[in-house]
Amino acid sequence: MNIGIVGLGLIGGSLGLDLRSQGYQVLGVSRREDTCHMAIETGVVDDASSELKLLAVADVVFICTPIAAIAPTIKQLIPHLSPDAIITDVGSVKTPIVESVAPLWHNFVGGHPMSGTAESGLSAAQRNLFAGNPYVLTPIETTPLKAVEQVEQIARSLQAKIYHCRPLDHDRAVSLISHLPVMVSAGLIAACTSEGDPAVLELAQNLASSGFRDTSRVGGGNPELGVMMARYNRQELLRSLHRYRYQLDELIAQIEQEDWNALEQQLQNNREARSHFSSCKG
Amino acid sequence: MNIGIVGLGLIGGSLGLDLRSQGYQVLGVSRREDTCHMAIETGVVDDASSELKLLAVADVVFICTPIAAIAPTIKQLIPHLSPDAIITDVGSVKTPIVESVAPLWHNFVGGHPMSGTAESGLSAAQRNLFAGNPYVLTPIETTPLKAVEQVEQIARSLQAKIYHCRPLDHDRAVSLISHLPVMVSAGLIAACTSEGDPAVLELAQNLASSGFRDTSRVGGGNPELGVMMARYNRQELLRSLHRYRYQLDELIAQIEQEDWNALEQQLQNNREARSHFSSCKG
Repeated sequence: MNIGIVGLGLIGGSLGLDLRSQGYQVLGVSRREDTCHMAIETGVVDDASSELKLLAVADVVFICTPIAAIAPTIKQLIPHLSPDAIITDVGSVKTPIVESVAPLWHNFVGGHPMSGTAESGLSAAQRNLFAGNPYVLTPIETTPLKAVEQVEQIARSLQAKIYHCRPLDHDRAVSLISHLPVMVSAGLIAACTSEGDPAVLELAQNLASSGFRDTSRVGGGNPELGVMMARYNRQELLRSLHRYRYQLDELIAQIEQEDWNALEQQLQNNREARSHFSSCKG
Repeated sequence: MNIGIVGLGLIGGSLGLDLRSQGYQVLGVSRREDTCHMAIETGVVDDASSELKLLAVADVVFICTPIAAIAPTIKQLIPHLSPDAIITDVGSVKTPIVESVAPLWHNFVGGHPMSGTAESGLSAAQRNLFAGNPYVLTPIETTPLKAVEQVEQIARSLQAKIYHCRPLDHDRAVSLISHLPVMVSAGLIAACTSEGDPAVLELAQNLASSGFRDTSRVGGGNPELGVMMARYNRQELLRSLHRYRYQLDELIAQIEQEDWNALEQQLQNNREARSHFSSCKG
């Protein structure tokens, strides 16, 4: 089977490494010629080109560009594809992508492999990036079952944990556990930095330890990625933020009213609730 | 020199281990007889008793009880002390303690060694717990310089980094970098858990990864400790929470108004600002 990958960065490159080692023929497309050369040299792809027509023989194509480029790339790709080809993407937001792409190509399956590293680009590509991590597929009613099964089979070969859900449910879930933490954490850094007394700010900087470090980590991350998730998952992120603000106001009210029983109950519920989130178990 | 330690838990026990290895004579007091026996057996103290009169010969006494017991313990201790004895404490909030204890005992120096582990109790006590970590001293105008120097010398022998500041500045700084993160993080867990659609909640639990794990860590911690810091540092925590809420509302407004330039600028400022907090450097 021929697999096409458009966009040879961390995700596209890591996909290529794993899929080639599974015996698939992997064809890569990158806008940059030097990325194409590097992808061939490092064994990420069998062949590469800066032109989409390379993918005329592809059975399944993974779109691994930044979110903003996914739908435009697919529009450019379609004239080159065989009619039975399956397209899937790896974007971290699904509703806007599925809504814009599904009308263009019947055999489209929205996907989101939830793997990554702090690095980006082809040089950060690695084997087994997806192993043990979630890979969400978001077929809709009109998605052909055969296309879903095909993409799922490939995702399984990466040793990923497969989940199926509606695009909206995906976007709601990731807004809660991935995009909301970024904004919650960003607010913490902004609040500490806004301290007006320079002596207190300097002391805070000196005394900060693991609690501040961990809670502020994702809020001090890549600004472009933060804006991207807010932009493309805006509605669900706002829903999560308003939900969060309500809970924050509850905590503030408990402290203002010195309702220590209610606060302790909430913190006890939290400890129990947190243990049900997969990355926090054990 | 004879050093007394009242309260033989993680902090008191770890102090005993380090101070004995520095050659100090260490006398421990715990309400529980079995803790006294264990402290002697494990080499945490030279002698131990459940009665405060053991400390009649102490030159410096560390009060290592929970915050609520610090002032009452000092009241009970005073009749047994020699008039020149110095008292210090290890409470994580300083204004209420200094305000209640300073009028009772002239030679009192507020202190806060900012070290800890996830464990508590004497069995968690360890050598070098304080090495490399901040140890804040909060003398006030009436605190005798000799008493401050004495406590500082002992803290230095633990290889801690010494900071001096006003009790209020301490409480403001720790409310920002230690107590605020707990509430910010608690709100995140509560918001995710409050998701009303069971399918989305289950998906969120399955998809949660390192971003959720780190941002929710301190909000899923010990409920009693969380209530204790809110209770004893209430005013400063509320100040920090209102500051935080303002910043959160700014972020929400930027996303509502799709002001992506402002959001990106804020996230860029955050990345830069975070690098100035000691635990986040490098």
